[in-house]
Amino acid sequence: MDFEQIGYAVVDGVATITLSRPDKLNAFTSQMMAEMIAAFDRVDADDDVRVVIVTGAGRAFCAGADLSSGAGTFDYADAGADSPVGPDGELRYGVERARDGGGRLTLRIFQCLKPVIAAINGAAVGIGATMALPMDIRLASEAARFGFVFARRGIVPEAASSYFLPRVVGISQALEWCYSGRVFDAAEAKAGGLVREVVPADALLARATTIAREIADNTAPVSVALTRQMMWRGLGYQHPMEAHRVDSRAILSRGRSGDAREGVTSFLEKRAPAYPDRVSADMPDFYPWWEEPAYR
Amino acid sequence: MDFEQIGYAVVDGVATITLSRPDKLNAFTSQMMAEMIAAFDRVDADDDVRVVIVTGAGRAFCAGADLSSGAGTFDYADAGADSPVGPDGELRYGVERARDGGGRLTLRIFQCLKPVIAAINGAAVGIGATMALPMDIRLASEAARFGFVFARRGIVPEAASSYFLPRVVGISQALEWCYSGRVFDAAEAKAGGLVREVVPADALLARATTIAREIADNTAPVSVALTRQMMWRGLGYQHPMEAHRVDSRAILSRGRSGDAREGVTSFLEKRAPAYPDRVSADMPDFYPWWEEPAYR
Amino acid sequence: MDFEQIGYAVVDGVATITLSRPDKLNAFTSQMMAEMIAAFDRVDADDDVRVVIVTGAGRAFCAGADLSSGAGTFDYADAGADSPVGPDGELRYGVERARDGGGRLTLRIFQCLKPVIAAINGAAVGIGATMALPMDIRLASEAARFGFVFARRGIVPEAASSYFLPRVVGISQALEWCYSGRVFDAAEAKAGGLVREVVPADALLARATTIAREIADNTAPVSVALTRQMMWRGLGYQHPMEAHRVDSRAILSRGRSGDAREGVTSFLEKRAPAYPDRVSADMPDFYPWWEEPAYR
Repeated sequence: MDFEQIGYAVVDGVATITLSRPDKLNAFTSQMMAEMIAAFDRVDADDDVRVVIVTGAGRAFCAGADLSSGAGTFDYADAGADSPVGPDGELRYGVERARDGGGRLTLRIFQCLKPVIAAINGAAVGIGATMALPMDIRLASEAARFGFVFARRGIVPEAASSYFLPRVVGISQALEWCYSGRVFDAAEAKAGGLVREVVPADALLARATTIAREIADNTAPVSVALTRQMMWRGLGYQHPMEAHRVDSRAILSRGRSGDAREGVTSFLEKRAPAYPDRVSADMPDFYPWWEEPAYR
Repeated sequence: MDFEQIGYAVVDGVATITLSRPDKLNAFTSQMMAEMIAAFDRVDADDDVRVVIVTGAGRAFCAGADLSSGAGTFDYADAGADSPVGPDGELRYGVERARDGGGRLTLRIFQCLKPVIAAINGAAVGIGATMALPMDIRLASEAARFGFVFARRGIVPEAASSYFLPRVVGISQALEWCYSGRVFDAAEAKAGGLVREVVPADALLARATTIAREIADNTAPVSVALTRQMMWRGLGYQHPMEAHRVDSRAILSRGRSGDAREGVTSFLEKRAPAYPDRVSADMPDFYPWWEEPAYR
Repeated sequence: MDFEQIGYAVVDGVATITLSRPDKLNAFTSQMMAEMIAAFDRVDADDDVRVVIVTGAGRAFCAGADLSSGAGTFDYADAGADSPVGPDGELRYGVERARDGGGRLTLRIFQCLKPVIAAINGAAVGIGATMALPMDIRLASEAARFGFVFARRGIVPEAASSYFLPRVVGISQALEWCYSGRVFDAAEAKAGGLVREVVPADALLARATTIAREIADNTAPVSVALTRQMMWRGLGYQHPMEAHRVDSRAILSRGRSGDAREGVTSFLEKRAPAYPDRVSADMPDFYPWWEEPAYR
């Protein structure tokens, strides 16, 4: 797949995905969604990618939906037998095409096996804000602006943000931002727990790369892949026994791995590690330990 | 229903519910509970109400249970066939009258369709503190005091606070406050994540009103009602797919609404919006998307 | 049971459990795990214990697994019929001995009926960090150091930390620490929400004792035991009704207790309380209100 609305580059173990419709402030489209999902598929399949950075081209991160079609922007037309809108205007909620595109993307990011760092360089509004929620670490440029503007457009928060946002920033902050729909700056985003750090605009990618490098240079890829899924899945558990079942398996199987031998040995020898195992081939036999719920 | 222990007034889209037994520091009673529940029913049914502010009359917000009956304050007497206490003193946990009154109130607030702002003007102790947890935004006067004092009275946290409190302030802070049962000031409440802002006493209601106005003047009522339920329900989900199922429906149906057309158009025309849809009549057909669990 | 690798002492209502292999920086062993679990059993059975403090002997809290056996540290050997590793090297995930030892400990702490304060005096690395997560209040000496180093050893976070860590510090902070595996200081632990306070090394136990005393001197033991389980279990609920069912029972039964009478009376009389009820004998009939999930 060639990408038209995003950039994709891998340098020294770090993949950078760049939202790239700079003349449109990287406004989100269904093509961009499909390209992003394909890019994350590529990330997971490529053992040379240890960490992902997502950023925007030009002065925005992602300004949200493209409103250039005006009043009907959010209105699906009747498009035939598989359309979410039937001939009499009835809505077919359960069909695949009725799925919110933002949610298709955030669910894909949720399943990613590599750490994902959002380097939010400018406006992150609507889906531009919610797409960053399942990313693991959010960094903001001083020029970044955020807005959960849905209620000002007559719609609602999407991209599964009712799962992610209250867990990331707390229910009270989540509601205040979504109720008001106002645009706020990077300092408020940091104070509210939405971003980890605010850095000068020209230092943003360097800072993201520093974090990525620390991971890539020191840790075992299979360990990191399991850790990502253990923690995100664990956030939805009802009892710690659910975690215990998984991590008992993981400790038992990874403890016998070449990675564990190398991890301990390199530590004792005070040298850089060279882990033998790869995400593409060496994930343990109990992975995945869940059944992914279907859309319906 | 006429209210005796609370005040209820609607001004310009904002309902203010005032706990009003000022000579008793607004101590909680079963009548106050019933009036509060009725007030929230009124809020939801009245399209002229966009936002709710809850505050206290006089110098307290709510000082908790009324201890004037002394040692037996928390002791239900045997009161006949439907009593939670049988003739031999046996407890009938499953009967309706065995339900904790604070929990009946907080579950009602949980279901509210309008944003709820707590303007905590003074002492908020016991149920006075826990009733504020399902409110969306908590503001405190500098004169406010808080106490989860249950363990000092030989009872336990109530009002479903074991659901709300660890989610609002984190499990460690929740336990520290509940273990010690000590009374603490507004600054500690802010540091611990219990309140969003601390403001001078004479600025409290003005600040609450400013927040309410920003919502009322800019956002679509049906969007806000859905957002409130999506976020609070989402906090209890086990997987983001649960959110995706709901927000896909919401985006599909609200995207075709007059509210979405007005939201986009008014934004592009840089004018104030005039949303056509009302909470009383225009909630989407998939709402409610849950089955409310029964008490038992 | 006599303890060899931990210390156990009760003074004036406060039990102190001291990890005690100081020449090994209190590195974790299966014997230490068994002794810790036995110590928590003793805590729960002894009404003279109101609060537990966990700390380390010497300069570390717990430096993690003992790596002195080198590359095979995390590798279970084939040990016969009940071994988690079969004769052909196949892993038997479901057997009891396949359970992660850290998780056996944290699940035991999760079930404790007394408040648990971690007084983290020095290095808390690996299981030394994760074992503290189900403790209620974490205090750190200025000398404390933390590390979720698993991915640098080729293994994964354990001790059910995929349940506890994202709930205690948030998913983003949890992942950043686990991805990098780096060791960080007490100030960062406080900024990230991992510890409540950082105090000078020589003031650590005094501070822990002050917190313990406030609980022990003022609150009802049965109330505190119920509160601990209500809050930790509540953190895993999907709906506040689950909390309401439990706290309605608790308010009804504890409201009739001698503890409630003493709590209200002592408050009204402005004197220290003398609660009659004991955890060993007077937990309510609906306790436990859950069925503990099995390992499998």
